[in-house]
Amino acid sequence: MEQQTLEFELTKEFRDRFQQALDERDDAFIRNSLQDVKAADITALVYEFTPEESKYFMELLSIEIQSEIIRDLDSETRKKYLKLHDPQAIAILLNQLLSDDTADILHELPVKVREEVFVGLEPVLRSQVTELLRYEENVAGGLMAKELIRARINWTVVQCVDEIRKQAENVSKFYQVYVVDDRDKLLGRLSLQDLIISDARKLVADIYEKDIVSVETYMEDWEVAEVMKKYELVSVPVVNVQGYLVGRITIDDIVDVITEQAEEERQMMAGISENVEEDDSIWRNTRARLPWLLIGILGGLMNAKFMGLFEAELVRVTAIAFFTPLIQATGGNVGIQSSSLIVQSLANPDFVDEGLWKRLIKVFFVAILNGLVLSTLVWGANILLFQEYKLSLVVSIALFSVIVFASFIGTITPLILNRFGFNPALAAGPFITTTNDLLGLTLYFFTVHLIL
Amino acid sequence: MEQQTLEFELTKEFRDRFQQALDERDDAFIRNSLQDVKAADITALVYEFTPEESKYFMELLSIEIQSEIIRDLDSETRKKYLKLHDPQAIAILLNQLLSDDTADILHELPVKVREEVFVGLEPVLRSQVTELLRYEENVAGGLMAKELIRARINWTVVQCVDEIRKQAENVSKFYQVYVVDDRDKLLGRLSLQDLIISDARKLVADIYEKDIVSVETYMEDWEVAEVMKKYELVSVPVVNVQGYLVGRITIDDIVDVITEQAEEERQMMAGISENVEEDDSIWRNTRARLPWLLIGILGGLMNAKFMGLFEAELVRVTAIAFFTPLIQATGGNVGIQSSSLIVQSLANPDFVDEGLWKRLIKVFFVAILNGLVLSTLVWGANILLFQEYKLSLVVSIALFSVIVFASFIGTITPLILNRFGFNPALAAGPFITTTNDLLGLTLYFFTVHLIL
Repeated sequence: MEQQTLEFELTKEFRDRFQQALDERDDAFIRNSLQDVKAADITALVYEFTPEESKYFMELLSIEIQSEIIRDLDSETRKKYLKLHDPQAIAILLNQLLSDDTADILHELPVKVREEVFVGLEPVLRSQVTELLRYEENVAGGLMAKELIRARINWTVVQCVDEIRKQAENVSKFYQVYVVDDRDKLLGRLSLQDLIISDARKLVADIYEKDIVSVETYMEDWEVAEVMKKYELVSVPVVNVQGYLVGRITIDDIVDVITEQAEEERQMMAGISENVEEDDSIWRNTRARLPWLLIGILGGLMNAKFMGLFEAELVRVTAIAFFTPLIQATGGNVGIQSSSLIVQSLANPDFVDEGLWKRLIKVFFVAILNGLVLSTLVWGANILLFQEYKLSLVVSIALFSVIVFASFIGTITPLILNRFGFNPALAAGPFITTTNDLLGLTLYFFTVHLIL
Repeated sequence: MEQQTLEFELTKEFRDRFQQALDERDDAFIRNSLQDVKAADITALVYEFTPEESKYFMELLSIEIQSEIIRDLDSETRKKYLKLHDPQAIAILLNQLLSDDTADILHELPVKVREEVFVGLEPVLRSQVTELLRYEENVAGGLMAKELIRARINWTVVQCVDEIRKQAENVSKFYQVYVVDDRDKLLGRLSLQDLIISDARKLVADIYEKDIVSVETYMEDWEVAEVMKKYELVSVPVVNVQGYLVGRITIDDIVDVITEQAEEERQMMAGISENVEEDDSIWRNTRARLPWLLIGILGGLMNAKFMGLFEAELVRVTAIAFFTPLIQATGGNVGIQSSSLIVQSLANPDFVDEGLWKRLIKVFFVAILNGLVLSTLVWGANILLFQEYKLSLVVSIALFSVIVFASFIGTITPLILNRFGFNPALAAGPFITTTNDLLGLTLYFFTVHLIL
């Protein structure tokens, strides 16, 4: 980020100097250094200090900036911060925000505090929030804001502009005017640019765009994200089942949905079971890791028990044991590759199911090709490295089978999870590795048993 | 997606019926069924047919819709599709698009075709594109469009609106007017809503917002994405090093950047080495998978060679071999967890480096906790399952050490990659698993050697 364009940069030096100012209650320095700094930059600063320290410097800022920072904080930090405030103070902050942000923050508060804050909200905001709180957080109704600009179909452009002047006080940012009939049924939209370039005497009915994409209140957040991405929208109107306009969702909320979704998927692939960040507490970090590690351990114990069944073979030819890591690692890698490609396909909204068979046949051919290349190479390497002709053959046959089977399991598992309503990304993590470890061992020892 | 709100749904039935219409050259059916369907929906249809078939039905659509579809296609499909057109026809399509999209598509064409298409572009577009082609695709200059609305600081609101009427013909979508001085130096911005609600006689100088975030031409795409996310912008002006306004980037381009970044990272984690999709050719799928599988195989061979050094021990106590999968799988899982948490931290733009030591000490404690829990459990399970007291102790000590070491390596590797300018996500994939397999084996056999 450039000094020249963004001005504020949070350096270690600044943080230390700021800490000193906080310790010394040097209000002049604090006010001075935060003047003209954007709320989003001060938000980053809040993460560097204790809630008490943050409260101290935040209270030197305007109430608008304070509320914007609180809106942008992550939910854990916000909870800790708001704990230091009484309900009246929280209500004053929330009165600055849009209905959707207010509803989100109310959701996080303890029930008793929530009720008291609620009473302190301004009447309009209170009734808007009451409606929003009815929806789940991960559907369109839970994402939308109530504040929007609406124009009646029978207005003129000049009437429309007058109304916008009145309504705009309550709506901080807007890019579209929604056109409705007398009963608030959504008919279309009017972009601000159309409004600016149109003759003032024209009727809304003559210039509005009928062809409008909207979403319904119960649509899931990722579906809303797909719709907005597909049609390249910066805001989308939300209608109820009867088609009446009830809110709007803006692109910034959707950018958050997309980012969170990617993060969640990565955590699933990495075998982390709750939403955790590296700088969370040691205990939280441990707890997030343990479940998948336990499953891996369970798989490992089953592996051990299974290998025990072949003790006689192992005693006869110890070198058999040398190649279990090779077989298992390859099975794991192939499984992860296959499943993550399927997860990617499933995430594509325009994905038309080619049919299970067509897909499996293709995966099969890819596996055969990879299998042939790799098992030939391994065969050659083993002959050179170990001079064990029969064992080398066994390893290569087992490797080839593992590649084919692991591709199959890697492909089919996410599809099954998806069919039963689970997140298919679950299959791209330790689950597939654990399964494939066992699979690899079974195939290997089966081949050993047959040939060696 | 709801029939009611989005109308068009691409079903298998529709595809089959459409195929029939294409085979029979049933223009009436094609025209009818695509009437009032949005370009983004027709784009999805293009993927279902051969380039020749797509060309057939596309040519029944308006040139505006055709060019929009071509813009939205993925680059592979577009290349195949445009191969069927001569340069003049391509130029006609590109003349409908904004400068940034035109430049992107020109980039993809073979040099000879590119030159011929270039000659067919309208003069204004041609000069805009000439400038854009100078920039790398993954920096702000390569993402921006030249089309934007600018207002001079000394204009009145009414002058400004008049100019917008003139300029708006060339700019399809805009949300901001950029305020510049006589020499095009960026001074600030004016939102359309401010323009609508302001008195027509006011001066731009009195109502514009000075506090504006801009990016410079050489800023990388992910940095632009972070800036737009942080400040919740729908568009951002691009300035050159002297601060002159040269273009603007809109949020839809940034949504693409974010989505692609997440996909790339997932592919790295899954050990897929080129940007590939499941429905790409068998050969491409194979090629994308082989490199990482080969590295895994190499690791596997080293494992085998290493285990061979301990043949004497294995002959003495065969059961040692039973626990290598357990040790290695846990090492792999812990390594992936650790590295993906670091990758996540590094991706956070507000990340302030806590210092390597503080971080490592924390990772160490998390590892100790996980290690104690898991090795105690495994010890108990092994006593019950195998009744081998001494071996159970060895396994648990090795498991504990592996968890600690794998955490350390998983943490340090992405940091090192990042320091030397590589993508740290590289470390969250097969690389860390392969390393940790070897590490696990070494620690295990070392413990065996010491104690058993």
